[in-house]
Amino acid sequence: MPMKHRRISLSERRSRRYRINYGFMFLKRFTILYAIEWATYFNPLELTLDTIRDLKLYQNKKGYRFSVDALLLYSFVNLRRAGHIADLGAGSGVIGLLLARKYHDSTVTLIELQESLAGLAKKNAKLNSLDDRVAVIESNITNIAAGRSPLLAKSFDLVVSNPPFRRQNTGLISPTDEKAIARHEIKLKIKDLIDASFYLLRAKGRLCIIYHPSRLVELIDALRKKQLEPKRLRLVHSNTNTEAKMVLVEAIKEGKAEMKIEKPMYIYNENGQYRDEMKQLYRAY
Amino acid sequence: MPMKHRRISLSERRSRRYRINYGFMFLKRFTILYAIEWATYFNPLELTLDTIRDLKLYQNKKGYRFSVDALLLYSFVNLRRAGHIADLGAGSGVIGLLLARKYHDSTVTLIELQESLAGLAKKNAKLNSLDDRVAVIESNITNIAAGRSPLLAKSFDLVVSNPPFRRQNTGLISPTDEKAIARHEIKLKIKDLIDASFYLLRAKGRLCIIYHPSRLVELIDALRKKQLEPKRLRLVHSNTNTEAKMVLVEAIKEGKAEMKIEKPMYIYNENGQYRDEMKQLYRAY
Repeated sequence: MPMKHRRISLSERRSRRYRINYGFMFLKRFTILYAIEWATYFNPLELTLDTIRDLKLYQNKKGYRFSVDALLLYSFVNLRRAGHIADLGAGSGVIGLLLARKYHDSTVTLIELQESLAGLAKKNAKLNSLDDRVAVIESNITNIAAGRSPLLAKSFDLVVSNPPFRRQNTGLISPTDEKAIARHEIKLKIKDLIDASFYLLRAKGRLCIIYHPSRLVELIDALRKKQLEPKRLRLVHSNTNTEAKMVLVEAIKEGKAEMKIEKPMYIYNENGQYRDEMKQLYRAY
Repeated sequence: MPMKHRRISLSERRSRRYRINYGFMFLKRFTILYAIEWATYFNPLELTLDTIRDLKLYQNKKGYRFSVDALLLYSFVNLRRAGHIADLGAGSGVIGLLLARKYHDSTVTLIELQESLAGLAKKNAKLNSLDDRVAVIESNITNIAAGRSPLLAKSFDLVVSNPPFRRQNTGLISPTDEKAIARHEIKLKIKDLIDASFYLLRAKGRLCIIYHPSRLVELIDALRKKQLEPKRLRLVHSNTNTEAKMVLVEAIKEGKAEMKIEKPMYIYNENGQYRDEMKQLYRAY
């Protein structure tokens, strides 16, 4: 039998022709792979359909996608009734839509700056037949903070937000803009978020926010400067041996100073699996 | 054999003479018992000798006695070296003396307003052969805050404090003054404590304090107003199912804003017994 792969001698490998051919072959493969990668990356239309609890949710395949933070914030809200709810920086709408499901009598206003995400949020409200109670407003939170708002002042019972919390110029800025804006303080400063919340909330209305522990002090500071009194705190740890990775804060507009720090939340057990509380959060019901 | 205790018939018990005699007997016992109780209560000289870790400690039998809070604060201090340490509101000296034991090169200044407690602190420093490195100053913290201090400004590396944290006019005020002053904000406001700490600490010096969660926000606020940046936080819970009952805070003078929230501390396990971390804290070594 003839040998299919003949052994290439060392002298042959060193020949000019072999080296050029090998180089071309390598370049061709490299180019094709990268072309596919980039096409996926910059196709804004590519969506995934995900399910979270009883909600169906379109999300951009690349770009900003909801994380466990959204669920944590959702579960932190403990109002008995909520009339008017606003979600500042709503993304594809996951938190607001979950809250609309939970509070049947509520109306929910999703406020999102990025056109692509606001479009998705609208799509998602319709997909879950919640579009009669859920409105999406494409607006800059800075405008609301400055009082240039399409929304009525002092009319909301609850404002929720999962804002970007990384300082600008720190950490790796995401190459896709959508993600970057949702993560870094590029378009939304914490001060503006709190000013906007103050503008929207009625007296004794509540702001529920998820934030990074490293900036808890700045958050408390900013809240207090706007008569939003931090009243309830819950820390989220990966497991019992790690420092806090997220912090949940509830502030009450014009509330009295008195803080309650709830039992901490752990995401994983010793075996690296979700704890029961987390499983319950993810469950479809 | 004659019966020593003869059975008293019902008719006899109902007789006037028996009832009068029985009443006197009861009154006599009652009076003696209470006289002893009250004598103990108002005798300021009665001491107990307790052992905590490797420390012997005289404490007033009634009056302010150290609690688990002192140990928690002691364990929260994580400096590698401490040159000059001050304990504001030192009581009978437990925290400062434990720190003097831990940091062999340190000098410790115990500042206590109440004469009875300052005296005890001195006694305790001597008892543990630490009086060459431990000084007790009977002084009002408000005076230090106002700059009228017998101590050098900006000369301390570490200030610790387990201050009274109950607001005046809230809760039950203790009937013995000593306890009341140590628990309620009668003689020491949190603002004064922080002003005094600021006065005593060198730049980048640390303040470690144990406080009540309900007033965490006020504490953070007061710290920041004095350029004492809260950097490290640890919450203490009774067990995994309860809200935080104490909060430990480390602030750095003129530090950069960035918070780290450590894993929480639990005092009891499911069976209501001390957890290992607590047992280790209490152990004599």
